[in-house]
Amino acid sequence: MEKIGFIGLGIMGKPMATHLLRAGHSLNVLKTSQASKEMESMGATLHATPAELARASEVVITCLPDSPEVEAIVLGQEGVAEGVREGMLYIDMSTIAPATARKVCEILTAKGVDCLDAPVSGGQAGAEAATLSVMAGGTAAAFGRALPVLQKMGKNIVHIGESGAGQVTKACNQIVVGMTIQAVAEALTLAKKAGVDVARVREALLGGFAQSKILDVHGQRVIEGNYKPGFKVKLHRKDMNIALQTGRELSVPLPGSALVSTQMDALIARGEGELDHSGLALLLEGLAGL
Amino acid sequence: MEKIGFIGLGIMGKPMATHLLRAGHSLNVLKTSQASKEMESMGATLHATPAELARASEVVITCLPDSPEVEAIVLGQEGVAEGVREGMLYIDMSTIAPATARKVCEILTAKGVDCLDAPVSGGQAGAEAATLSVMAGGTAAAFGRALPVLQKMGKNIVHIGESGAGQVTKACNQIVVGMTIQAVAEALTLAKKAGVDVARVREALLGGFAQSKILDVHGQRVIEGNYKPGFKVKLHRKDMNIALQTGRELSVPLPGSALVSTQMDALIARGEGELDHSGLALLLEGLAGL
Repeated sequence: MEKIGFIGLGIMGKPMATHLLRAGHSLNVLKTSQASKEMESMGATLHATPAELARASEVVITCLPDSPEVEAIVLGQEGVAEGVREGMLYIDMSTIAPATARKVCEILTAKGVDCLDAPVSGGQAGAEAATLSVMAGGTAAAFGRALPVLQKMGKNIVHIGESGAGQVTKACNQIVVGMTIQAVAEALTLAKKAGVDVARVREALLGGFAQSKILDVHGQRVIEGNYKPGFKVKLHRKDMNIALQTGRELSVPLPGSALVSTQMDALIARGEGELDHSGLALLLEGLAGL
Repeated sequence: MEKIGFIGLGIMGKPMATHLLRAGHSLNVLKTSQASKEMESMGATLHATPAELARASEVVITCLPDSPEVEAIVLGQEGVAEGVREGMLYIDMSTIAPATARKVCEILTAKGVDCLDAPVSGGQAGAEAATLSVMAGGTAAAFGRALPVLQKMGKNIVHIGESGAGQVTKACNQIVVGMTIQAVAEALTLAKKAGVDVARVREALLGGFAQSKILDVHGQRVIEGNYKPGFKVKLHRKDMNIALQTGRELSVPLPGSALVSTQMDALIARGEGELDHSGLALLLEGLAGL
């Protein structure tokens, strides 16, 4: 089985890398990583730099917070790009700007590396249960090669199109999720202030065209006032920024996305950026005096 | 079986009234109604005024365009209120302002009439197939009495709470549906302009937290460019107005709903108010130069 280098052992990356170890892959991780000691005790090998880690691997996976981190780790000094060889596979599972994904892919492709942007959806719970949804962009060859590896971390794995298409799809996903939460928040806040039983409203709406996974799961959170993450507002805000930036680059107006971003800014300004993104309802409830 | 007076034989009311006729009810309709001749040929009795129609009925149902029409038909000269007797049942299946619903109910209740606000969701197709969702507000007695009648026109019939609660729920429904359409429109327009296969984006998003009935049904409409109604933009705009007005009355800010209303205004200003509400995507595509 391929030797895999995994960079980014955060709340998502750590359980994902653990699944690969348990499936029998030799795993290379960075010495500087917070979780490195724990991963070493499970059998991973530590490396000083991304370049050294890449030299010891056949597949390199990154799962990092944002575009600048991916650029630094892959294209920076002693970065992944300095350690890759022809015939390797690179999978970026971070959520970053499509433009950055394409740039990184171009540079690595020129070195003979198969590249895939493969951002995920499903959060910490999905990472731990290996049930993440994966939206992939890259060549059919890169996708075919990555699929058996991705299947150890996720379930609904879709090849969308060429390089960057995975990140575009993830941006679309975050637009829809963010705006649907805002929709549910506005509806339930109105019902609550009107003195109507919000649980029955949720139930009635789930039976018709207003049905959504968000109304089901986050609607229940709003009713219970349970804003423990889940997926943090500040992380979703970052993803909305990627969507808005991509909209600007492509001259696509995204008025609803911009509004939801602003609502998230307001929540963060109140010091509630660590809450679950369904906390958007809390902002409205505050404004409505509830 | 009860004698039913039915006022408002439009694209929704006509099939709904027809179900009641076929179920064996004697049906009273207004002579002035466009569909009166057709209903008469099916066995309905014609009446000159709402008051006369009410005198000949045990149950009166209205299914009208907006709040002013309901006020005029029920509370106006020779209106329903002049013809009702103690022990009758009044069901309003129009989508109107909760405040108007409560006002009408108060006046009829003082005359000994059981009242229910029972707006529906499901559109013309749901009316024809008798599969409408019904969101009801009123006393338990009014709901219990209305249920066998409602079951001849709908399927998912939920008693939400007291008078006006049905209309509040319908407003919530229209908020969620409108904003979710806008969310799907923004996401798919971004994907389209980025040159990504929108059908695959829809498919990938349906597998995760972005899933909704709107993404499923209206997402497919957007992909096909099929904006034949369905539910017209101009009617949804009217419903958004009810939601915003209710928000103002209750001091609940509804920024996303206001934005979607404005998008609908823009579409109507372009002369496209007769399109299906998923036509919101057409507006974005136009602005994005697609």
